[in-house]
Amino acid sequence: MVRTVERTARTRGPGDAVDVTAEVAAAVAGSGVTSGIATVFVTGSTAGVTTIEFESGVVADLDAALEKVAPRHADYRHHLKWGDDNGSAHVRAGMVGPSLSVPFRDGELLLGTWQQIVLLEFDTRARSRRYVVQVVGD
Amino acid sequence: MVRTVERTARTRGPGDAVDVTAEVAAAVAGSGVTSGIATVFVTGSTAGVTTIEFESGVVADLDAALEKVAPRHADYRHHLKWGDDNGSAHVRAGMVGPSLSVPFRDGELLLGTWQQIVLLEFDTRARSRRYVVQVVGD
Amino acid sequence: MVRTVERTARTRGPGDAVDVTAEVAAAVAGSGVTSGIATVFVTGSTAGVTTIEFESGVVADLDAALEKVAPRHADYRHHLKWGDDNGSAHVRAGMVGPSLSVPFRDGELLLGTWQQIVLLEFDTRARSRRYVVQVVGD
Repeated sequence: MVRTVERTARTRGPGDAVDVTAEVAAAVAGSGVTSGIATVFVTGSTAGVTTIEFESGVVADLDAALEKVAPRHADYRHHLKWGDDNGSAHVRAGMVGPSLSVPFRDGELLLGTWQQIVLLEFDTRARSRRYVVQVVGD
Repeated sequence: MVRTVERTARTRGPGDAVDVTAEVAAAVAGSGVTSGIATVFVTGSTAGVTTIEFESGVVADLDAALEKVAPRHADYRHHLKWGDDNGSAHVRAGMVGPSLSVPFRDGELLLGTWQQIVLLEFDTRARSRRYVVQVVGD
Repeated sequence: MVRTVERTARTRGPGDAVDVTAEVAAAVAGSGVTSGIATVFVTGSTAGVTTIEFESGVVADLDAALEKVAPRHADYRHHLKWGDDNGSAHVRAGMVGPSLSVPFRDGELLLGTWQQIVLLEFDTRARSRRYVVQVVGD
């Protein structure tokens, strides 16, 4: 059985993280699927999906670490292509990835207590982000 | 068909990697599912799952690279939150991710010869890690 | 329903990216599966799979960022093991990961307009890369 749920998350700008755990859990609960995997996929090439302990300190620390690898205010070849200024966002998104598969059983996501599913905003501004929760199972 | 297997791996401390390929292969073999995907998911926000050529050199090299991005002995905002000292672990876990989906066919994982599934310990001490192998397929 | 498709991509050397979106879309279209997930998995421990906006600028930017984390011309413990010279490739592959799960519905991958599925070559030379597209769904 497959159920597709599309959702939107509003991000507040570069470095923001949105906790989408409740939306993913609701998609699973509403699917009628008992056990399987929920694949969370963000459409777009300047955002990412992962799990973290969702608190503002970790969100800032993750952004600071990615800033070392792909600083926002730097030169990127991508900027020469379209006149964009978000080369950093493209690099971060490629490294973190757009997709996460989380197992569930008896309708419950098998996450740790301090483990939340987050959508990471890497782009240069606040955005409305579309993501898909694809529930596959029995 | 869906089969859920829960397993535990003992890690020896920060930078350790545990090869869980045999456990994942056994979960697939014991599932009665012939073809599909095995999703390996570590519960917790200070560990990760990926594939590497499992030998001590690569394990040390990966740790050294992550040390550049998120050094263990540094200041993290997360430390201000709970008095924790594992901000580095949270950042590394968010970057690498907790989840991996590996295809299998005729009961065999479609891995490369020198490609093993590993659980990476990022936390500051040896831990007993729980992970789930969710087998979905025909 | 599960359908397994194996494909090969030729890479041109370190830092190259190959857009495999059309091959993944064709695997889904040819599978007879209407909705589900397509898991793209590269066999081998010196390559990766992710999504990017596929244009030469982003490809170069991503390579440059990974060069900071795992420079090609540096010492790696892995080199001491087998006399290999691709320690950088192993580290990059472990960080980016070999696997990506993309949802599809009505036979169409739910990607963003500027979001392509890419196979990243991290090894020191051009290679022929095998990857699997595992289609699971209804």
